[in-house]
Amino acid sequence: MNIEEAVKAVKEPDGAAAREAARRWDRVAKPLNSLGELERDVIRIAGAQGSSTISIGRKAIVVMCADNGIVEEGVTQTGQAVTAIVAENMAAGRSCVCLMAERAGADVIPVDVGMASCSPVKGVLWRRVASGTRNFRKEAAMSREEAVQAIETGIAIACELKAKGYELAGSGEMGIGNTTTSSAVLSTLLNVEPELVTGRGAGLTSAGYRRKVQVIKEGLALHRPDRRDPVDVLAKVGGLDLAALAGFYIGCGLCRMPVVLDGLITAAGALAAVGICPKVKGYLLASHRSAEPAGGIALDALGLTPVIQAGMCLGEGTGAAACFPLLDMAAAVYGQMSSFEEIQVEQYQHLQ
Amino acid sequence: MNIEEAVKAVKEPDGAAAREAARRWDRVAKPLNSLGELERDVIRIAGAQGSSTISIGRKAIVVMCADNGIVEEGVTQTGQAVTAIVAENMAAGRSCVCLMAERAGADVIPVDVGMASCSPVKGVLWRRVASGTRNFRKEAAMSREEAVQAIETGIAIACELKAKGYELAGSGEMGIGNTTTSSAVLSTLLNVEPELVTGRGAGLTSAGYRRKVQVIKEGLALHRPDRRDPVDVLAKVGGLDLAALAGFYIGCGLCRMPVVLDGLITAAGALAAVGICPKVKGYLLASHRSAEPAGGIALDALGLTPVIQAGMCLGEGTGAAACFPLLDMAAAVYGQMSSFEEIQVEQYQHLQ
Repeated sequence: MNIEEAVKAVKEPDGAAAREAARRWDRVAKPLNSLGELERDVIRIAGAQGSSTISIGRKAIVVMCADNGIVEEGVTQTGQAVTAIVAENMAAGRSCVCLMAERAGADVIPVDVGMASCSPVKGVLWRRVASGTRNFRKEAAMSREEAVQAIETGIAIACELKAKGYELAGSGEMGIGNTTTSSAVLSTLLNVEPELVTGRGAGLTSAGYRRKVQVIKEGLALHRPDRRDPVDVLAKVGGLDLAALAGFYIGCGLCRMPVVLDGLITAAGALAAVGICPKVKGYLLASHRSAEPAGGIALDALGLTPVIQAGMCLGEGTGAAACFPLLDMAAAVYGQMSSFEEIQVEQYQHLQ
Repeated sequence: MNIEEAVKAVKEPDGAAAREAARRWDRVAKPLNSLGELERDVIRIAGAQGSSTISIGRKAIVVMCADNGIVEEGVTQTGQAVTAIVAENMAAGRSCVCLMAERAGADVIPVDVGMASCSPVKGVLWRRVASGTRNFRKEAAMSREEAVQAIETGIAIACELKAKGYELAGSGEMGIGNTTTSSAVLSTLLNVEPELVTGRGAGLTSAGYRRKVQVIKEGLALHRPDRRDPVDVLAKVGGLDLAALAGFYIGCGLCRMPVVLDGLITAAGALAAVGICPKVKGYLLASHRSAEPAGGIALDALGLTPVIQAGMCLGEGTGAAACFPLLDMAAAVYGQMSSFEEIQVEQYQHLQ
């Protein structure tokens, strides 16, 4: 499905289902709101799925893998080879997100949407749009057509997941250099100075950090991406992983599948998605507030409140994996816990 | 074992094991510190267990159940009967913490340390010290001997758990009125005004809240508990659940079993435990920052950083249950993830 068709087909979450879920929480025999954001997450899931009887048994974390030409500029601590090594580990079930997702009962689906490796990595879904992007300090990271193709790839993957019976998605990414592209995208979409939304990524020195900010500034000055046109922003200073993530969120909206973000990069992709299709917002769930400050800034801009605040910044979808058991627990209390009526105790009343 | 013997026998956590765990984290193939507080939790567990090879397979949440005479003063929204109803549900595996712990692979062990019900509740461990406490606005909640007995009960339960093969403990409580006793205890131990550490519990009105603060102030003025003597504080304005929790933490220290707190009430018990035996601090792990502000204040005083911040305030040990899968995930990455050496990538270096 192309972007325009998908955007038209996305519906607002089901307000009636969400309101019924909220009423059902109030009947559960426990103090009102005492599971806090977890209750609100269940309500969001009900709205997204269109039913107050939520179902989140089958879960997958889609990990968009891609390389970024901007690493030429020395904005990272490691080289592009690491993207392929980690993707290979991921396919073999040995990366961090795999170990965590296994405990959450979730599948991990790594997707090559734009890795720079010479050959496909075994076990990684082959959806490559290009073999990495170009250095956005010198030229546009990709053509508009490539950005569109990556977004549509993401939309298609969401629909495939839904067709396979997945009920809750997580999102992750792997791509050396993608905190730089994410900061460039966020700076543009939020209309703020790059310093405000740039962090140290996987461990830059102070000099490396200054270089990263400088490179982003030069790229933005060169391309002047149009912040009212997120596809333009993604093409000029983004990445194939970011574009595919943006498409994935639109696809999740289209298929009414709630989707859990991870950190900075996934949130940047989500902001782009919401810029393209505002209705997508109601299908998103935050997992954690990342140690990268821009992650939290992006969540705030999306109006999302995370449940975990542990200083994590690993990427790969590890935040989504960490969040899944909490959602499972909330769903168990929501679905199985006695009501006040059943235990013959008077229901708590909301204060005025 | 009596309190004095236990306090003498508690050892500091094993610093060498903790340091080895920290070095091991740095070798794991992922950005340094990228699992944030979860890494520090694993390091604490290593120190507590005395080995860098941590083991947290078998987990139990001990829920201290007790009633509080102070409910006579109208400081709660529900009556003491609810303590028994919830304890009964807990024994039947139907309470909120049970539904959540089941998903975390943890057992829930409700303990009657001082419920007011006429007869024992089936399935609840019978360790009753007294049938509820007295109204501390009018007289001491309990005698010093009762407080000591409750503490020693907690110590014994930790040792029993350890003997049964449990490797990680969680702590919870159930007792209508115990946010009032907790606030009174915290106010004394932290030497702050009651307003600062008093919240709305399970849903008080503004008038109810003012009444709660007033009752605490009158109780403290009447008894003037000695903040350098936590047993005195627990006896005069605390509860049997708080005293048993304090003992449980001391017992966990004694048995080198790391123990996860829940919210306000468990943190108040932990502050009392650390007041009695400072070495216990190294065996404690925070789970979440409660919606009750005093919960966070108590964690700060204990120097603990939680990983979940979701506005939860349910009690029963639900925060500990929610935290367990995150610790399991961290332990999986710590124990099973490839090292940089194994994947032939150069290790990240800590910045100076």
